[in-house]
Amino acid sequence: MLHDNIKVLENGHLAFGGSDVVELAEKYGTPLYVTDEAKIRSNFREYKAAVEKYFGKESLPLYASKALCCKEIYRIAKDEGVGTDVVSGGELYTALSVGFPSEKIYFHGNNKTEADINYALDNNIGGFVVDNFDELVYLNAQAGGRNKVQPILLRLSPGIDPHTHRAVVTGSVDSKFGVAIETGQALEFVKTALECKNLQLEGIHCHIGSQIFDKFPFTDAARIMLDFAVEVKNKLDFTFKKINLGGGIGVRYTEKHPVVTVDEILREIKNELDIMVSERGLESPIFLFEMGRFCVANAGMTLYTVGAFKQITGYKNYVCIDGGMPDNPRYALYESEYTVYNGSKANLPRNITASVAGRCCESGDLIGEDMQVQEFSRGDILAVAVTGAYNYSMASHYNRIPKPAMVSVNNGVDKLIIKRETYEDILKNEI
Amino acid sequence: MLHDNIKVLENGHLAFGGSDVVELAEKYGTPLYVTDEAKIRSNFREYKAAVEKYFGKESLPLYASKALCCKEIYRIAKDEGVGTDVVSGGELYTALSVGFPSEKIYFHGNNKTEADINYALDNNIGGFVVDNFDELVYLNAQAGGRNKVQPILLRLSPGIDPHTHRAVVTGSVDSKFGVAIETGQALEFVKTALECKNLQLEGIHCHIGSQIFDKFPFTDAARIMLDFAVEVKNKLDFTFKKINLGGGIGVRYTEKHPVVTVDEILREIKNELDIMVSERGLESPIFLFEMGRFCVANAGMTLYTVGAFKQITGYKNYVCIDGGMPDNPRYALYESEYTVYNGSKANLPRNITASVAGRCCESGDLIGEDMQVQEFSRGDILAVAVTGAYNYSMASHYNRIPKPAMVSVNNGVDKLIIKRETYEDILKNEI
Repeated sequence: MLHDNIKVLENGHLAFGGSDVVELAEKYGTPLYVTDEAKIRSNFREYKAAVEKYFGKESLPLYASKALCCKEIYRIAKDEGVGTDVVSGGELYTALSVGFPSEKIYFHGNNKTEADINYALDNNIGGFVVDNFDELVYLNAQAGGRNKVQPILLRLSPGIDPHTHRAVVTGSVDSKFGVAIETGQALEFVKTALECKNLQLEGIHCHIGSQIFDKFPFTDAARIMLDFAVEVKNKLDFTFKKINLGGGIGVRYTEKHPVVTVDEILREIKNELDIMVSERGLESPIFLFEMGRFCVANAGMTLYTVGAFKQITGYKNYVCIDGGMPDNPRYALYESEYTVYNGSKANLPRNITASVAGRCCESGDLIGEDMQVQEFSRGDILAVAVTGAYNYSMASHYNRIPKPAMVSVNNGVDKLIIKRETYEDILKNEI
Repeated sequence: MLHDNIKVLENGHLAFGGSDVVELAEKYGTPLYVTDEAKIRSNFREYKAAVEKYFGKESLPLYASKALCCKEIYRIAKDEGVGTDVVSGGELYTALSVGFPSEKIYFHGNNKTEADINYALDNNIGGFVVDNFDELVYLNAQAGGRNKVQPILLRLSPGIDPHTHRAVVTGSVDSKFGVAIETGQALEFVKTALECKNLQLEGIHCHIGSQIFDKFPFTDAARIMLDFAVEVKNKLDFTFKKINLGGGIGVRYTEKHPVVTVDEILREIKNELDIMVSERGLESPIFLFEMGRFCVANAGMTLYTVGAFKQITGYKNYVCIDGGMPDNPRYALYESEYTVYNGSKANLPRNITASVAGRCCESGDLIGEDMQVQEFSRGDILAVAVTGAYNYSMASHYNRIPKPAMVSVNNGVDKLIIKRETYEDILKNEI
């Protein structure tokens, strides 16, 4: 199986996180997000152990909230002792609503609103990752108004292309994020930050993209960041205490994707970093990481009911499901690949080529095109694996389709963590 | 200006639907959806007049709800005497919530759920556009259980490529929508429908795509549909009363797009149809149309506040706004083009090349890339024109950003029609 939390039961049903998916579908209805709590916890533990092993106790493993933001994930993250980064007041609000410790929260974003900045300052978050000059000036003034000194990192763009999908490349020179090193603007950015009396510059941050399966993009980015640290030390006599290398470790969505562990990637990165730091005669900074997808993707599965198996003779087959783009827009956005199972008949061979089509009035509303799948007929439960990241968090109400419920499973025990939306919920603010 | 409801005021501000956009932004906050009621009404009137002029009073102009679905649009549509098509229980619920007449509602969708079918039957909607054999069988049984005979159309795929964006092509043979004529399956579909005792087959439906600026894709589709009608008449001795040709008339998003009126397109289509119908010796069917984007797109504008103007020396400029992909995912989905204005300084020349970047942690979160725009600085109101279609209806909560408020303007008078979402609203169903 793709991941060890997916199994076939003796009754031929698929099990996820120890629960029979057909029973879950009957109990809670479809479409249904299922989240495997045990897997999230083991991902957090693997991540935390690797960070502590290679980068010491001073380095806090951060969970990138945007992958899956809901009350329950912050409860688990808090429990497992990881920090988090948020990118909006809404994410921060959610974290604080379950008592997530604010000093372990970093605030990201290329265009933080004034309201969000003030909200975060009022709640004494651990750090801001400042994106641009405008934000720097505003944040300094607002921190000043509160007589406080706010720790910050500066978001830089190192000029790296991690050879992944264009929309998820975030570290190239012309990215909307951060300030470019190559153009000389990053040095000015540091200079300005050092002049801000109410900001305490702790270090620098970069994020190069996502779905990266080897160390090289990370070590390439680190090399550029460290060279910049040397330049800053030489020209401004200032040493960065922290360097945050972001996230982006690849997740296995299909059999084509390799299995990589955070331990092996971080070990390889650590080895290179040690050499690079010592070559440059730098005091070793604290390296930080932010993983989102890695922590939650394989802990998620979405269940749908099949409405029709449509054969267009000589052309194409479609398995039509009762959800799609509104609960999972990733194919529409990136042509992302997924693995699907017939949850009701999980023993069937994959001998059919079919596209899995959502129910929206939109041709791009697909889970995948021309996939190798099992047979499906009306009423079967179709399970899409590895939907824990960027599904619920990106969900829309397109075609006024209510958001699915989310159920947590944990070694065979299920509980509702997000109630299914109603039509009344969707119309709530309409006059 | 791009459309006649966009003007520059003497104070240099932009006006939309007679209202100063800077004043709207101050009064209601940003991001803000603005909807020009007078323009929607004039679009509905233009559409209705053209349909009645060329296709008679029996042909009902239908509004395709998915473009913009909210209570207010159905109030206006009801008032203007147009019908509507819905694609989900949620859209139907919204229409019924303001007393939209159910007999003027058609129900679309490639995979209607059983719950939705029963909900629509219970509310006596005018017609179902049946997509596939499974739906046909289920609908017939459910209508039978209610001792009623439900009027239906059959969704067919004519095998037309209207040369538009791939994701919005909906009439090709291998489309997920409907049953293909070319493969012979459509004839079987008609045969089966005629055997369904509780369904009354009124005719056939196709929809070929969107953003179509000339008559040819429509007349090509009509030719195939009429040839099929002849085949059905000859082989099954049955004559279709209605042929629904769908929608898809192009809308002017930028100066590059031509100005087309629904009157001229429908006139040209009508002329061709008359010839085609008479050549085939058919009794003239009632032709129906469904326009969504045409009715609402140019009646919408979105207002944002600029947070930063970011110059990456030698590379790129970014205008950073306080919304983006969550309220308007169309660039992320289709690389759709838009026209933007500096609402605060609308007289400035367009002498800057810049990308307009949203505030999400996502590189694809753009309104447009390398556009020719006016100068912008922090605090300016940036207005994106022609956002009335597929913006609010496709909005997500990505990065937990609440949905903007929507304000209606009508010859300078503004009123709130959708309240701004709160963080509490977003968390409402989370346990």
